[in-house]
Amino acid sequence: MTDRSATIDRLKELLGERLSTGTSVRELHGRDEAYSTPSLPDAVAFPETTEEVSKIVSICAEAGCPVVPYGVGTSLEGHIVPVRGGVSIDTSRMNRVLEVHEADLDAVVEPGVTRTQLNDALRATGLMFTVDPGANATLGGMAATRASGTNAVRYGTMRETVLALEVVLPDGTVIETGTRARKSSAGYDLTHLFVGSEGTLGIITRLTVRLHGIPERIAAATAAFPSVEAAVDTVILAIQSGLPLARIELLDEVMMRGMALYNPDLGLPEAPHLFLEFHGSSAGVDEQVESFRAIAEDMGAADFSWATRTEERNRLWEARHNAYYACKALRPGCVALVTDVCVPISALAACIAETKEAIAESGLLAPLVGHVGDGNFHLSILIEPGNAEELARAKALAHRLNRLALAFGGTVTGEHGVGSGKKIYMEEEHGPAWALMRTLKQAIDPQGIMNPGKIV
Amino acid sequence: MTDRSATIDRLKELLGERLSTGTSVRELHGRDEAYSTPSLPDAVAFPETTEEVSKIVSICAEAGCPVVPYGVGTSLEGHIVPVRGGVSIDTSRMNRVLEVHEADLDAVVEPGVTRTQLNDALRATGLMFTVDPGANATLGGMAATRASGTNAVRYGTMRETVLALEVVLPDGTVIETGTRARKSSAGYDLTHLFVGSEGTLGIITRLTVRLHGIPERIAAATAAFPSVEAAVDTVILAIQSGLPLARIELLDEVMMRGMALYNPDLGLPEAPHLFLEFHGSSAGVDEQVESFRAIAEDMGAADFSWATRTEERNRLWEARHNAYYACKALRPGCVALVTDVCVPISALAACIAETKEAIAESGLLAPLVGHVGDGNFHLSILIEPGNAEELARAKALAHRLNRLALAFGGTVTGEHGVGSGKKIYMEEEHGPAWALMRTLKQAIDPQGIMNPGKIV
Repeated sequence: MTDRSATIDRLKELLGERLSTGTSVRELHGRDEAYSTPSLPDAVAFPETTEEVSKIVSICAEAGCPVVPYGVGTSLEGHIVPVRGGVSIDTSRMNRVLEVHEADLDAVVEPGVTRTQLNDALRATGLMFTVDPGANATLGGMAATRASGTNAVRYGTMRETVLALEVVLPDGTVIETGTRARKSSAGYDLTHLFVGSEGTLGIITRLTVRLHGIPERIAAATAAFPSVEAAVDTVILAIQSGLPLARIELLDEVMMRGMALYNPDLGLPEAPHLFLEFHGSSAGVDEQVESFRAIAEDMGAADFSWATRTEERNRLWEARHNAYYACKALRPGCVALVTDVCVPISALAACIAETKEAIAESGLLAPLVGHVGDGNFHLSILIEPGNAEELARAKALAHRLNRLALAFGGTVTGEHGVGSGKKIYMEEEHGPAWALMRTLKQAIDPQGIMNPGKIV
Repeated sequence: MTDRSATIDRLKELLGERLSTGTSVRELHGRDEAYSTPSLPDAVAFPETTEEVSKIVSICAEAGCPVVPYGVGTSLEGHIVPVRGGVSIDTSRMNRVLEVHEADLDAVVEPGVTRTQLNDALRATGLMFTVDPGANATLGGMAATRASGTNAVRYGTMRETVLALEVVLPDGTVIETGTRARKSSAGYDLTHLFVGSEGTLGIITRLTVRLHGIPERIAAATAAFPSVEAAVDTVILAIQSGLPLARIELLDEVMMRGMALYNPDLGLPEAPHLFLEFHGSSAGVDEQVESFRAIAEDMGAADFSWATRTEERNRLWEARHNAYYACKALRPGCVALVTDVCVPISALAACIAETKEAIAESGLLAPLVGHVGDGNFHLSILIEPGNAEELARAKALAHRLNRLALAFGGTVTGEHGVGSGKKIYMEEEHGPAWALMRTLKQAIDPQGIMNPGKIV
């Protein structure tokens, strides 16, 4: 503790009021949206520049004090919880969109910029930033967890979206991991090493991200299917036939029941659904919609309806984005334990079928939504707050789902990350490759000060 | 030498006739297509399984003997030259297409499979493998150099194409770096660490790669422009307007003069050209072509012509793929020193203008072709074989081009890699990040036996 208070004094000297040791601020930085046990940092720093981040990390490194980066706290596996205390580095004051390069379709931003903030800044350009996790997360946090969302099937996840990073290493050194050139074969791919590293190898202080042109025409559609399998098979056929679907969301019949309760006006039946979005030119979108409708109807789809008017489209995606509340409408007063797995799409229908058996055996209600074009799906396991027995059953169900994903050749997390919540599966998923991850961690952060207790 | 001969004896015991110490075999594995000094391995191993690769590497590791992976030797920066001798691991006997998953749009292959071999194997499926460097390289080699080609603007490079790898580490351990799931947030991105690592961190023994559906309709087009700048501006506008161009190749007027000499039937004027390809549905492709034509003609393009018949398209792309011979037609009997840089597309026209000044000052002939949608271009600097003075001038020109690329915010190699040829630029391009690359190399290969002398 002596060490830490001396460290905090030095940080206070550097940052003044932008170093907080107040309990309420520390509590805000002591938990994310996961079911993990809160743990408070000793202090919270609010740097405004890369140089300040570098100095903070250097000071902490001298004392072996943990450093935990923090965006807006929307992570779902305990990523930003300072399980060994130390300094939480809140990037909210590093929130400037620094450059927008319209000709290059890229932008350079600070890590505290959120995804909707960036899209607002792009409004005059005809360009868009496409990665859209449920929360309005920061781009620094999204890069750190390799986040994705509903558009990933067409535009990619943060893995495909981050072109280059500026990173503060565990000794305070500042590096740049690439240039704004679209591609490079000049050495090891450091950008991708830090994307998904969850703050355990360094702190992202600047990002260069790809943008995309807003398409001339956007159409949204919904279709009801006789079974989840029919919906998944439709998606497989559509992708194989080259349809460049922009969004393909699967919602099971339980989720649709919640939707009907929460949005009675939506008027969609309680059957497995696909919610879709098509992007392209005027003629191209019409053609895509008709091609998709033909495939879907062959697979038994009913109630195919589509809309190109902005208000109608927004109504649909707002309903999708409110899935969390729709879930809760199924069991008023409940809370949701949210999970995330990803399998090869050919295994998706079978994996979901076994998942539904597991849900039935658990006796719990667990609506399912999925980014089905990626083979990625989520359960929201609904439990009564404070009911330890239900929480235990929910955790057992989530555990079973993770094991199923591995058995089907998949991964225990498609987009939420490892944090502390999924660390127990790393050895099983990666085998000897997990040891290599530890070797990398040890080489880059030999003191183990960067977000300790996560991933490795 | 004692150590090495003992090592070779042990390898011979393992591999029998598949371990060669014959001079002609060693000579074949002593150089690639670059202007680098040949250097022979002590022996060449021809493993047939991952287990054999693992054993070879373990035996070499015990003796600290260098290990250099070899595909078909088409690298361009000396990548596969055993500059410190040791054992060249030739993957030509590991050339099976192991699995094709049509529903998942992926394939699992051994590293010695070449790109045309994979496409032949896919013939009945309606799927295609899209990365197409000039040479018919092996997929192992292409992953190791992070290769790309003419389709990268639409389908990505090896960076976007490799989903997972099996790798033999420098101590013989076999790891898998991912699953066939389309995305994952489960820990450090080891796949991307090995893509582009040029055999310096381990040996790729299996690859899972993405495939794409062959589009319903393909159209090719050519357009002549009053200047390189007009051609580049056309591409920028086309990309901004969301046209999903599949190929956009820039050929300058010098290259077109060579084309005219080599393919008199092609009948294209000696002006900067774009060669394009459009992929999509029937209506979509027609619309793309018309949209592109409108933009190009606004920028002063003339002679816009397009074709959807396979033979006409093939004639065009054959001409493009024969650019090397077209170059040589400009100066019969010459050889070409080939370079490769990549800059942000907004800087491309200016970078090319300065490059052309540098070419003029060099007094050499150097036709230019570029994957212009990526900001990537190549010079083929034509020199007389054995003319040391011209070689020196060519190297000085290539050096100037590399410095220009860095000055324009780019990279010294977009797709050819570092090898030994571009190592001298690593510090300038990466700054303190290069030290991190050395840290990684040291951590993963502490003995430095994996392809020594390359990248770091």
